[in-house]
Amino acid sequence: MDILIKNGIIITQDDERKIFKGNIAINGNLITYVGKEMPSGNFDSIIDATDKLVLPGFINTHTHVAMTGFKGLLDDMELNEFLNKTSELDSKRTDDGIFNSSLLGIYEMINGGITSFLDLYYSEDIIESAVKKTGIRAYLAWATLDREFTTQKGEPVNNAENFIKQTHADTVKPLIGVQGIYVSSDENYYRVKDISKKYGVKIHTHLSETRQEVYDFVKKNGERPVEHLYKINFLDDNVIAAHTVWVTLNEIKMLAKSGTKVSWNAVSNAKLASGGTMPVPEMIANNVNISLGTDSSGSNNSLNMFEEMKFSSLMINNDRWNADTVKSQQILDMATRNAGKALGENIGILKPGYLADLIIIDGRAVNMIPSNENNAINNIIFSATPENVRFVIVNGRILKHDGNIPGFDPEKFARLNYL
Amino acid sequence: MDILIKNGIIITQDDERKIFKGNIAINGNLITYVGKEMPSGNFDSIIDATDKLVLPGFINTHTHVAMTGFKGLLDDMELNEFLNKTSELDSKRTDDGIFNSSLLGIYEMINGGITSFLDLYYSEDIIESAVKKTGIRAYLAWATLDREFTTQKGEPVNNAENFIKQTHADTVKPLIGVQGIYVSSDENYYRVKDISKKYGVKIHTHLSETRQEVYDFVKKNGERPVEHLYKINFLDDNVIAAHTVWVTLNEIKMLAKSGTKVSWNAVSNAKLASGGTMPVPEMIANNVNISLGTDSSGSNNSLNMFEEMKFSSLMINNDRWNADTVKSQQILDMATRNAGKALGENIGILKPGYLADLIIIDGRAVNMIPSNENNAINNIIFSATPENVRFVIVNGRILKHDGNIPGFDPEKFARLNYL
Repeated sequence: MDILIKNGIIITQDDERKIFKGNIAINGNLITYVGKEMPSGNFDSIIDATDKLVLPGFINTHTHVAMTGFKGLLDDMELNEFLNKTSELDSKRTDDGIFNSSLLGIYEMINGGITSFLDLYYSEDIIESAVKKTGIRAYLAWATLDREFTTQKGEPVNNAENFIKQTHADTVKPLIGVQGIYVSSDENYYRVKDISKKYGVKIHTHLSETRQEVYDFVKKNGERPVEHLYKINFLDDNVIAAHTVWVTLNEIKMLAKSGTKVSWNAVSNAKLASGGTMPVPEMIANNVNISLGTDSSGSNNSLNMFEEMKFSSLMINNDRWNADTVKSQQILDMATRNAGKALGENIGILKPGYLADLIIIDGRAVNMIPSNENNAINNIIFSATPENVRFVIVNGRILKHDGNIPGFDPEKFARLNYL
Repeated sequence: MDILIKNGIIITQDDERKIFKGNIAINGNLITYVGKEMPSGNFDSIIDATDKLVLPGFINTHTHVAMTGFKGLLDDMELNEFLNKTSELDSKRTDDGIFNSSLLGIYEMINGGITSFLDLYYSEDIIESAVKKTGIRAYLAWATLDREFTTQKGEPVNNAENFIKQTHADTVKPLIGVQGIYVSSDENYYRVKDISKKYGVKIHTHLSETRQEVYDFVKKNGERPVEHLYKINFLDDNVIAAHTVWVTLNEIKMLAKSGTKVSWNAVSNAKLASGGTMPVPEMIANNVNISLGTDSSGSNNSLNMFEEMKFSSLMINNDRWNADTVKSQQILDMATRNAGKALGENIGILKPGYLADLIIIDGRAVNMIPSNENNAINNIIFSATPENVRFVIVNGRILKHDGNIPGFDPEKFARLNYL
């Protein structure tokens, strides 16, 4: 399908961060024009974006979408109780609960302008069925861990390898995952690394999320998690690590040197009362690639990148007692172009040749007036909500059309099993 | 108008915090029935609330609604730059900028389920015109300060007294305000107190928002702001103080003893990078009445109580390294019944005889499934967004009707002056 978006406030997120009133042409699944001229051609669909903000879709670099149905079940409890209850829910899951939760979570993400997500879970084959049904772009990392800790049937690494070898949908790429250092021996890390190299897939893992896991590891091994994974050559530029809250400056330098990417999950970290904020300024100073993740609805409880962006900004600025610590533009970069770069994909920037993953936000919504080229970035970070997203386009397909998501039937979804 | 709301999940917020599937009758501006039976009578309007959550409207106990047009203009800057720029914008304001900003901000509040707000500003007469146009409930505090610091024409205390003496709309009550201890002499506090007593109106003020103002006051006077205001008998149960972030345990006891109410503005405090979090657990332990405020769009930048509730919960729990520090139910209490009590009004609880200020939230929205009696409170605090609010009723009038706000014309509002 060929689409023309005309007269919008175009937020390119390109190297110069150009913002201007202009037009965008999409041919098939690619962006073919971004500029002030009116592109010629026959378009199947023309979207009038007057007073609207057009920008790359958000990229959520850490979630467990199949846990969407855990919403509202895991609140107001201390971390150990949370972990026990999550594990209990996890051990009883059904395939249709996983599928329905994934579908619901994906629709929630589309509703809020998320055009691709990076997932860490088992049963990624079921999650891929939900992805296919919706058309969202997904990076699916099958989680591995030592066999003694898993609820998966069979050997996690073999399950992951089998998933990677399957034929995947156009908008899906497989990765291999590691649950975390508290359930993964060096042996598991080595096997994951081998599979990553063998199939050319990236690696996604939890890393240094809580003080407890870092403390336990140090006590047992005499070194910190990032130090250890750096030493055994697990960390490299194919690794995207979620959380990395409890890291030292020395560890940040190891993340930087190895090219490891990090996903900042500020809402989830605070929701679980981790007590810390990822050391973002130090990571920026060391050129670590930072993107943003919502984590799952079990510890958030929403998949809302607007909220994630605002909260991230507020947390780090308040943490450093300076509202200019991390700028809105940097936060938007994390939610778009940094993530595209971390995933090694042509997404997160509006420019010809890039994949047509973009969103259109209403600048005339009651909470967005006044919006113009000068305050557009601030309004996206600090004022916008999912309802302001009018159009969501992924791979050249319109998944949210003037506020409506065709596949989502509230009546039906309210009655499904999500566990 | 008589309204029947049927088959909803009723979140009463009454003393027992009862939640059940049931019905509500509204006659005129009052709630006349809340229960499981189907009330009889002739109703002008019947709302089917199946799978929807019915609860008291949110009460925003600190804002400057006329600053809505400052959105996106005051971000990414240190506090002093913020204060200078705000003051510059403030000194150049026009009457229609104040009116338009107020109208826009009120519509934003209605959109997100806020049924009443407490405002602190000058020109409250203009703001009242906007209130009347919309039907929202408002508590309007004309700000006073020493004459040498004001941009108001005339003597602030006289302006405030004149405003109080005017005839007010049904849904409006006047208060008298104080800007803050950094621009108010004891003389001003005494005069405000006299007017409060003379007219039986409450007092609204900023108090101990930033470390700087506390430090400056201590340096000059050898005592802390709350200590001083307690000593001069300014603090009593008619005072609602916004922020109170930088207070000692001793000051908390003074707030408690005097019956002073506090408005917690977590988003604004973090947005301005104050570096602190209001000592909520200590205030709760001392029975201080805590409600929630969004502050203005100049330092938020939205008037969104869902965001305020979630952020408040996350901030305090993360601050204390325990996700069970303040429960969701307590947060919802702050946004509803505590605020009603602070204002001395029959709002914030669904029960017969109380004013008909209530909202209906869609439990079948993509970000709210699954919602039921058991997780309703958690979903309201952690998952809901303004778009989930389908109906807003204030004083028995429907101000948001199945998602639509009749008075708000996006096309027109996008072109107005807000400065």
